[in-house]
Amino acid sequence: MPDNITDLEVRALVDGVNLSDGHPRMSLSTSQSEIIAAFPEVFAHTRKLPVDVVEKSARAAFLSSLGQHSALDEEISFRSCYSSSTAIDMIGKAIRLAGRPVAMVEPTFDNLHDLLAGHGLRIRSVAETALASGPLDDIPPPGGVLFIVSPNNPTGTVLAAERLRDIAAACAERGTVLVIDSCFRAQDLRAQYDMYAVLGDFALDWVIIEDTGKLWPLQELKTGFLNWNAGNPLPLARMYSDHMLSASPFILRVVELFAEDGRHGGYDQLRDGIQRNRALARDNINLPPAYPDSRISVDTFRLPAGVAANALYTDLGEVGVHVLPGELFYWEQPNLGTDLIRISLARDPEAVVTGCQRVDQHLEAWRRVVIR
Amino acid sequence: MPDNITDLEVRALVDGVNLSDGHPRMSLSTSQSEIIAAFPEVFAHTRKLPVDVVEKSARAAFLSSLGQHSALDEEISFRSCYSSSTAIDMIGKAIRLAGRPVAMVEPTFDNLHDLLAGHGLRIRSVAETALASGPLDDIPPPGGVLFIVSPNNPTGTVLAAERLRDIAAACAERGTVLVIDSCFRAQDLRAQYDMYAVLGDFALDWVIIEDTGKLWPLQELKTGFLNWNAGNPLPLARMYSDHMLSASPFILRVVELFAEDGRHGGYDQLRDGIQRNRALARDNINLPPAYPDSRISVDTFRLPAGVAANALYTDLGEVGVHVLPGELFYWEQPNLGTDLIRISLARDPEAVVTGCQRVDQHLEAWRRVVIR
Repeated sequence: MPDNITDLEVRALVDGVNLSDGHPRMSLSTSQSEIIAAFPEVFAHTRKLPVDVVEKSARAAFLSSLGQHSALDEEISFRSCYSSSTAIDMIGKAIRLAGRPVAMVEPTFDNLHDLLAGHGLRIRSVAETALASGPLDDIPPPGGVLFIVSPNNPTGTVLAAERLRDIAAACAERGTVLVIDSCFRAQDLRAQYDMYAVLGDFALDWVIIEDTGKLWPLQELKTGFLNWNAGNPLPLARMYSDHMLSASPFILRVVELFAEDGRHGGYDQLRDGIQRNRALARDNINLPPAYPDSRISVDTFRLPAGVAANALYTDLGEVGVHVLPGELFYWEQPNLGTDLIRISLARDPEAVVTGCQRVDQHLEAWRRVVIR
Repeated sequence: MPDNITDLEVRALVDGVNLSDGHPRMSLSTSQSEIIAAFPEVFAHTRKLPVDVVEKSARAAFLSSLGQHSALDEEISFRSCYSSSTAIDMIGKAIRLAGRPVAMVEPTFDNLHDLLAGHGLRIRSVAETALASGPLDDIPPPGGVLFIVSPNNPTGTVLAAERLRDIAAACAERGTVLVIDSCFRAQDLRAQYDMYAVLGDFALDWVIIEDTGKLWPLQELKTGFLNWNAGNPLPLARMYSDHMLSASPFILRVVELFAEDGRHGGYDQLRDGIQRNRALARDNINLPPAYPDSRISVDTFRLPAGVAANALYTDLGEVGVHVLPGELFYWEQPNLGTDLIRISLARDPEAVVTGCQRVDQHLEAWRRVVIR
């Protein structure tokens, strides 16, 4: 099998300037450091509490801090998972058991597609542009599953509330389960309208994945929350209980404390840091940004004609700079991504500047060779 | 779908005396508490190291502390997972892609079977007694997968090195991939011969799951290690990279420190505590132990004729004592487990004594009713 994005990201973990994976690797803020300094007390605290109390409390803090108040409705089922990928894999397993066809947004992070494809699902590509505007008649597979991502990675595209309403109506009409991966929600205020309230207006089956893994430099101490409506036809509860008993109460409490810190300025700081790094990246690479409006913690640049992303990726790896080639995000039509590279902004500014300068130097050298 | 073991365990997390799940919930030792007191320093330390360095170091400490020295051979592939269940689910997904039939030991923890069955695999039952002795001719499915557990849960049965050698030879001859779940290895010295050295003597494809999740009361901070031989036909590396980038470096380092503590007396303390709790349980329930030689952190009792485990489970739940009914471990032939209940010993002694006394009182009352 060819390498997937994660394979390339693993290589980047080993050495050099890693602008490859989207995992947060920036420095901690002062108040975040204070939470970590209190880890022993956090551990002692959660030891004494029933797991379901800790779980509900973490989820309430996290989702309400992102405007998702209707997610806390008693009717809605939820589970805390090791990660959003764990949640997505459970969804894929449940879809296979239910025998439903799937349509999924393209481009998007390839592991979303691959996690589902590993279950042998039939997956049709839906262009992100077609999700964002235009007629919806042909998009929700009747009796199937529509899997979308908002904000989407790598484009940063956010579905507006009105458009989500139209998509929900189309799915409800066709008996399509609407699955939404919202893992980057905290990074973009435009994604923080009450999505659960919007969906709740329809006789619709839906699943939403929320996640803390993209936000805080917590060394993979994270939780994915899997949420679904009462009566959902996918056997999610069973797929979950086959896999796990509960997320770690310790991690859940850390998530709660980071979410509270987020609510009191931490999220603003997170978003400011990302936007500053985005400006630095754009200043230090002489290439046009592919998605100018993106607010998530990655940025994507369009390469000059004649430079193929995959070849550039290999060259840059040799000089110790790790980025991601655009082909991999186009899981159905890789040729649409050959002129794109994605870099991660969830780093300290120096790493972003150093990495971008090396990319730019490399491209300058290439330009000189081509011109000569 | 009927409830599985984890569903029942979730109910037990909420209230009462929980002798249901096998997750470790006993008090920490002094030296373990010291590691937790140093969590902030552990976090700061692993922030500075490459992930693969932390990962290799944790695995080396853990596996060598359990006698699995040949596991560290350069030729052997490994990955650190969120949990052993994550590893097993990846194996199931890989088996489905490879299209192999599976044979699995019975009885065993039902989620092992259910995780694989959720992938739509054909699974044949192999009696644990047939694995332990007798002819092996009909056991490894030719071109398939044989999935065994040693030490097994709930029986505590350990495959001796000589018998493992015979099973490995039979699998090698038939092109069967041998999968071994060794998650309870630390609890039984009889399981700590160098299993990887034994398997390495054969032209055999194998997978071994090691796990820290059953050992230490770390609130689900744990790691499953997925190990396999070079050239293994199951696409494990890809299933892994679709799902995750790496385990948490923080958790890996905690695992390393707990393993080092284990090597210097912690494992002896763990095993002593389990054996003391086993003696207390047997003293406080007037029922014969079903598996007298077991050394793992659960114990199983045989019910008097006329008491069905499922009915007893329900009755005990009403008085706030949570155990597990034996039916669930016999995933193919539940009728073989109707006279068994399993309790967890990974608790503080008071919980074991209180829970067992309540079970016994309940059975005494039942006996009086029946005799009268």
